[in-house]
Amino acid sequence: MAKFANKVRIGILGASGYTGAELLRLLVRHPGVEIRVLTADRKAGAAVETVFPHLAGLGLPPLVTIEQADWSQCDVVFCGLPHGTTQEVVAKLPRHLKVLDLSADFRLADIASYAEWYGHAHRAPELQKEAVYGLTELWRDRIKDSRLVAVPGCYPTAAQLPLVPLVEAGQILADDIVIDAKSGVSGAGRTLKETSMFAEVSEGINAYGIAKHRHAPEIEQGISLAAGRPIVVNFTPHLMPMNRGILSTIYVRLSNGAQAADLRGTLAKRYADEPFVRVVGEGVEPATRHVRGSNLCLIGVFKDRVKGRAIVISAIDNLVKGASGQAVQNMNLMTGQPETLGLDQAPMFP
Amino acid sequence: MAKFANKVRIGILGASGYTGAELLRLLVRHPGVEIRVLTADRKAGAAVETVFPHLAGLGLPPLVTIEQADWSQCDVVFCGLPHGTTQEVVAKLPRHLKVLDLSADFRLADIASYAEWYGHAHRAPELQKEAVYGLTELWRDRIKDSRLVAVPGCYPTAAQLPLVPLVEAGQILADDIVIDAKSGVSGAGRTLKETSMFAEVSEGINAYGIAKHRHAPEIEQGISLAAGRPIVVNFTPHLMPMNRGILSTIYVRLSNGAQAADLRGTLAKRYADEPFVRVVGEGVEPATRHVRGSNLCLIGVFKDRVKGRAIVISAIDNLVKGASGQAVQNMNLMTGQPETLGLDQAPMFP
Amino acid sequence: MAKFANKVRIGILGASGYTGAELLRLLVRHPGVEIRVLTADRKAGAAVETVFPHLAGLGLPPLVTIEQADWSQCDVVFCGLPHGTTQEVVAKLPRHLKVLDLSADFRLADIASYAEWYGHAHRAPELQKEAVYGLTELWRDRIKDSRLVAVPGCYPTAAQLPLVPLVEAGQILADDIVIDAKSGVSGAGRTLKETSMFAEVSEGINAYGIAKHRHAPEIEQGISLAAGRPIVVNFTPHLMPMNRGILSTIYVRLSNGAQAADLRGTLAKRYADEPFVRVVGEGVEPATRHVRGSNLCLIGVFKDRVKGRAIVISAIDNLVKGASGQAVQNMNLMTGQPETLGLDQAPMFP
Amino acid sequence: MAKFANKVRIGILGASGYTGAELLRLLVRHPGVEIRVLTADRKAGAAVETVFPHLAGLGLPPLVTIEQADWSQCDVVFCGLPHGTTQEVVAKLPRHLKVLDLSADFRLADIASYAEWYGHAHRAPELQKEAVYGLTELWRDRIKDSRLVAVPGCYPTAAQLPLVPLVEAGQILADDIVIDAKSGVSGAGRTLKETSMFAEVSEGINAYGIAKHRHAPEIEQGISLAAGRPIVVNFTPHLMPMNRGILSTIYVRLSNGAQAADLRGTLAKRYADEPFVRVVGEGVEPATRHVRGSNLCLIGVFKDRVKGRAIVISAIDNLVKGASGQAVQNMNLMTGQPETLGLDQAPMFP
Repeated sequence: MAKFANKVRIGILGASGYTGAELLRLLVRHPGVEIRVLTADRKAGAAVETVFPHLAGLGLPPLVTIEQADWSQCDVVFCGLPHGTTQEVVAKLPRHLKVLDLSADFRLADIASYAEWYGHAHRAPELQKEAVYGLTELWRDRIKDSRLVAVPGCYPTAAQLPLVPLVEAGQILADDIVIDAKSGVSGAGRTLKETSMFAEVSEGINAYGIAKHRHAPEIEQGISLAAGRPIVVNFTPHLMPMNRGILSTIYVRLSNGAQAADLRGTLAKRYADEPFVRVVGEGVEPATRHVRGSNLCLIGVFKDRVKGRAIVISAIDNLVKGASGQAVQNMNLMTGQPETLGLDQAPMFP
Repeated sequence: MAKFANKVRIGILGASGYTGAELLRLLVRHPGVEIRVLTADRKAGAAVETVFPHLAGLGLPPLVTIEQADWSQCDVVFCGLPHGTTQEVVAKLPRHLKVLDLSADFRLADIASYAEWYGHAHRAPELQKEAVYGLTELWRDRIKDSRLVAVPGCYPTAAQLPLVPLVEAGQILADDIVIDAKSGVSGAGRTLKETSMFAEVSEGINAYGIAKHRHAPEIEQGISLAAGRPIVVNFTPHLMPMNRGILSTIYVRLSNGAQAADLRGTLAKRYADEPFVRVVGEGVEPATRHVRGSNLCLIGVFKDRVKGRAIVISAIDNLVKGASGQAVQNMNLMTGQPETLGLDQAPMFP
Repeated sequence: MAKFANKVRIGILGASGYTGAELLRLLVRHPGVEIRVLTADRKAGAAVETVFPHLAGLGLPPLVTIEQADWSQCDVVFCGLPHGTTQEVVAKLPRHLKVLDLSADFRLADIASYAEWYGHAHRAPELQKEAVYGLTELWRDRIKDSRLVAVPGCYPTAAQLPLVPLVEAGQILADDIVIDAKSGVSGAGRTLKETSMFAEVSEGINAYGIAKHRHAPEIEQGISLAAGRPIVVNFTPHLMPMNRGILSTIYVRLSNGAQAADLRGTLAKRYADEPFVRVVGEGVEPATRHVRGSNLCLIGVFKDRVKGRAIVISAIDNLVKGASGQAVQNMNLMTGQPETLGLDQAPMFP
Repeated sequence: MAKFANKVRIGILGASGYTGAELLRLLVRHPGVEIRVLTADRKAGAAVETVFPHLAGLGLPPLVTIEQADWSQCDVVFCGLPHGTTQEVVAKLPRHLKVLDLSADFRLADIASYAEWYGHAHRAPELQKEAVYGLTELWRDRIKDSRLVAVPGCYPTAAQLPLVPLVEAGQILADDIVIDAKSGVSGAGRTLKETSMFAEVSEGINAYGIAKHRHAPEIEQGISLAAGRPIVVNFTPHLMPMNRGILSTIYVRLSNGAQAADLRGTLAKRYADEPFVRVVGEGVEPATRHVRGSNLCLIGVFKDRVKGRAIVISAIDNLVKGASGQAVQNMNLMTGQPETLGLDQAPMFP
C-alpha cells in the first residue's frame, strides 16, 4: 500500500559530503523518487558536478542554501549536516517533511548522554522524543510509522546487527564484549583534516579514539536495551587505507552453555528473511570487498581456540548500510514503498 | 522492436575471471535477461560464490565445464576465455547463439596481423570474416545485425573513442599520435602473475609492453580506417595501483589550422546524443574515479603550450566500458533492447 | 669483544623472496659484513637485479643453487626458505656456519607441536634441541652464544614483546588474551597466490586463518613460558592493503589490582634500555607507518572503558623487526658486533 | 679537502612538512652533520615527535619560530618554506649561512618569468643573481662554490636528467618534447587540500595543471640552456595513488640520424661515473618502486614503433632525488664532504 500516489519528492541537506554523494548515487536510479532540493551552503549556486564531477549529466537540481530551499517541493528530507548543527536545522523544518538524519544528533535517546559525549546540551529535546533509531532490521515496525529517523552510525550498525540477537538470546556475556573495528577513510567525511590525507593514511594502520569514540555510547545503548541493563563495551576503531568498508571483529564470551554453532543458528534464524543481512557459511570469512557498494551486511561466526569464547565478524560498506543505503531503506519503509527499492545493486568487485 | 518475446537467455564462458564477475554484476539486475549457463572449467561443480563471494545469494546457476553447458538454454553467449583458446571454442558453438567475445581473438580483421602479434595462425579464419568490431559508438549499425561481436580491448576503447572522430575530421595528424595510457590492475586479469601481486604494484608505477603491446595493432586498425591509410601510433601502457580505470593522455599534432577548441567541437558534436560518452567542459580534467563502475567514457580537450599541439584525455572503467559494460551495450543492440538497459548505474565515488 | 677479526662473511639461502630482499637492503650497508653467497634455486645463474631491480649496482654476488654454494666462503647463513624444506637443508649445512633461520621450522621447541601444526614429523629433531628462539629482547643471553637461531614470526614478535613482561609481572590474566592483528601483504611472501593479488587485497580487509593460524602455537609457547603453565590465546590475523607493517591490538584482563598505568610502567621499565622497543607516551597511538623500514617496535597502553580491562597496542614493520631486521640484530649478537649495527635507519614516512 | 673542521651544523626552516621529515630522516644518520635548529612557526614549542611521531627518540632539537632561531649555531640552512614567502625569509638570513632552498623561489633565473608564473614580483632580485640551480649532476662545479642553491623541483629533476644530455648532443628535436609525468601524493606537500585526501586520490588518476603547471618554465629553462635557444615543452603532470615517486615518460623525436641506441649511449656515457643516476639495460622498465627511499634516478631508453621517435623514461623518489636527497647531495658538495655521504640507502622494496 503506497502512501504516495506519485513519486516521493526528495530533498538533501548537506549534499556535498560523501554521504550526500552516496545518497545521490542511490536515489538517481531509485524508481520511486524524484530529487527536488539539494543544499550545500558553501557551494550554493553551483551545479552538483562542480562538487561531484561523477554526478554530472544526471539532471540534478542545483545546490542552494538552506534558506533558499523550497520545502513545499519535498516530502522527505535526508540530512547530511555535521553533528551539532543538525538539531537546530531539523527543528526548523516544516512538519510535513519526513526526516532521515544521518548525523549523530538524534541517535542517543538519553539527552544527558548526548550532552556528555558531544559537549553541549541537546538543542531539540522535544524532537528527540519523536526520533526513532533507524537500524532497520531491529526497529522496522517503529521506523515505518515515524516522521524523524536517526540513521545509525556506521560502526554501531556493524556492531549491533550481530550482537543484539546474541545478547537477547542470552548466548553471550554482555559484559565481556570486545569490538575491534576497521574502517575505510570515507567514514571520516570530506572535511579537510590531516588524518584523512592520502600520505597520512596509505601504507599504514592505527587505532584511534581508543575508549572514547562517540560511537561507543550508541553501541552501548543498543546492547543495553537488548540486555535489559546498562552495558559497557570495548569498542576500538582503526583507520586503514581503503575508501569504503567496515570490518568488525567481535570477541565474545559464551554463556548458558552456548557454542559458536548456536550463535550462528540464532543469527541465521533472526536474519533468514532479511534481504540485506546474510549469515555466511561456516568457515567463510566476511570481507568488506564483498559488500562494496551494496547495502549488505555479512556476518560470520567462528569457534575460538580459547575455551568459552567465540568470534563474530561483520562486514558492511560504511557509506551504504552504514549510512546512505540504510537511510534509503528506512525512507522506503516510511513512504510505503518496497523496502529494497533502489537498493538492488550487486557488490562491486574488484 | 524487440527481437525476443521473452527475456534473453544468457550464457557466460569463463565466468570466473574479472570480466566474468563484472558481467554478472551488470546482468543480475538487467531487466531483459536471464542468466542460464556459467562455465569455468577448473571450478566446474562449484557455486559461483566459491569463486566470487560477493555474488552469493543472487540465484545464479552453478559453474559447469564447457562440455557440460547446454547451449539450447541460451540465446546469447559472452565469452571471457583467454586469448588463443577462444577461436576454437567459439567455432564449435551452435550457430543459433549470438556471441560477444571479450578476448582479442576476433578483434583484428587481418588474420596475418593476428598471427604476427599473437604468435600463431588464426584458428577460425572463416568466423573472422563474420566478426564485427564492437566499439558501439563507432560501429553501432553493423553490431545491431551481427551474430559475432569482438568486444574491443580496454586500451583501444579509451584511445579510439577520442581519436577516430578527430582523424576522420582531418583535424589532427594521424602520423603523430602519442597515447600514454595508465591502467588499473584488473586489466591484467585474475591469472596469477608476479606483476599483479599487491606488493609488486602498490606504491609504484611503471610502463610495460613498450612499443610491443598487443593493443597497439588494434588501435592502429581503427585509426588506419579513419585515416584511410596505414597508420602507426605510439602506445605506451602503464600499470598503476588501482583496481579499475584507464586514463589515456593523448598528445596530438593539429592539422589544417584546427585549434584545441575545434577538436572539442568535433567530439562534442559527434557524441552529443551518446548516452555513454561525455565531452567534459573546458578545463575539466577527466578522472578515472569519476567513471568507476559505470559505462561512461569522459573526454577532455586541452590546449598545449607547444604551438600546433593539443592534448586529449579520456577516462573509462576498464571493466565496464572497457570490457563487460560495452559487451552488454552491444548485446542490447543485438537483441533489440534499449541500448542503455541495465547500464544506468551512476559512478561510485569515493 | 669482536669474535671476528675481519668482516663477517654472509650467505643467504633463498634470496629471492621479500625477506631476502630486506636482508640485502639491510646488509649491503652494514659496516661489519660482506655478502658472499646468495642462493635462489629457480633463478640460479641470474644476477640479483633480475629478481630485484632495486638492488642493481650494489656489487652483489650472482644467484646460485644450494648445491653450488661454497660455504667455506661464509661465516653466517641466513635461511629464507619455505617452511618444511628448511629443516633438511639446515641439517646438511657445515657446522662451522652460524645459522639464522627465518622460516618456522625451528621455532617450536616441542616437536610434537610442530608435527601437529605443520602436518609432518620434524625432520631435524636433534638440531631442534640446539635451536634458540630469536626474540632478541627476551632471549638475548642465549642468542649470543648460539649457533642456530630460529628468527620469530612477524605476528609472534608483535604479540610477545608487549605480552611477555605483563604476564611475567602477573598484571594480566594469561587465560584471557585477545590478539587482533592486522598485517600488510608482504607477510604472505612472494609466492603467487590469489589472496596476494592487488585486486583481491586493495580496498578491503578480512580476517583469515581464524583460530587456526600457525603463529598461534608460537605465541602460546612464549606466553606459556612466561606464565609457567600452558596457555591458549585468541589470535586473529587480518590481511589489509599495505605492503609492510603489523599492528596488534591486544585486549587484556587486568589482575592483581593492576591498572593500565601499571602495565605501562612495567613495559617502560623492561624496555628502558632497549634500542628497538619504545613504549610511547600516554594517549599516543602506535601506527605502523611510524616504524616503516625500521627495526622498531612501538608499544602503547590504554585504559579501557570496560572495568578491569586494558588495551595494549604494538606496531612493527613485519619485514624488519618481524623478520630480516631482527635476524640481523641476532647476527650482530652472535658475531660479537654492536647489536644495533646496520639497523640505525630512521623510519620512512610518508 | 674538508671545509669544516667539525661536523656541519644544520638548521631546517619549515621542518614540519614532508620535505622536512625527509631531510631529518637523511640527516639524523649523516655522519658529517649535527642538527641544531628546527623551525615550524605554527608548531613552535613542540617536540618534533608531536609533528612526526616516526622521528621520536632521535634527540632532535625542539621546534622554534624563525624569530627564535639562533643562526650562530648553524653553518647550513635548508629551507622548506612555501613558495612566495621564502625570498624574504632567505634575504634576512645572516650571510655566513649556506642556504639550500627547496621552494621554487630561486629556481628561475629570469625574474620576469618568476613574476609571470608566480603572480608577484620577485622579492629578492639581488639574491637571485647569486642563486645556483642545484641539479647536481648538471651543475656540480657551480654548486660546489655557491652560498645559495635553489634545489630543483621534483618534476624538473626527473625531466632534465634524461633530456639535457640528449638536447646537448643534438640527438633529439628540442621543439618536439612531450613529458608525461606521474607523481605520488607527497609531492603536493602536507598542506590540507581536498585533492590530497585519501578518498579523493586512491583508486584513481587524473592529469592536473595541464599546460600551466609551474614546473614547466623550470624545465624549459634547463632545456633552453641546453638547446641554446628558447624552447617550449609539453609537460603534463598526473596525480596518482602512491606516497612517493615520479615516473616521467618522455616522448621525443630523433634528429641528426640518431637512433634509440644512440640516445642510450649518450646517457650511459654522461652518467657513467655518477653514483645516483643509472641508465638501465635495454628492455628494463624503470619503476618508481625501484628507487623508493633512495637518491637514485633510473633512466631507460626505448625504440618507438613510430618512425623517427623514441621513448625515454625516468624514475625518481620525489622526496629524495626530487627534493631532500638532492638537497643533501648539494650540501655535501658545498661543505666539502663526499657527495654521497648519508645517501647510501638501498631502495626499500616492497
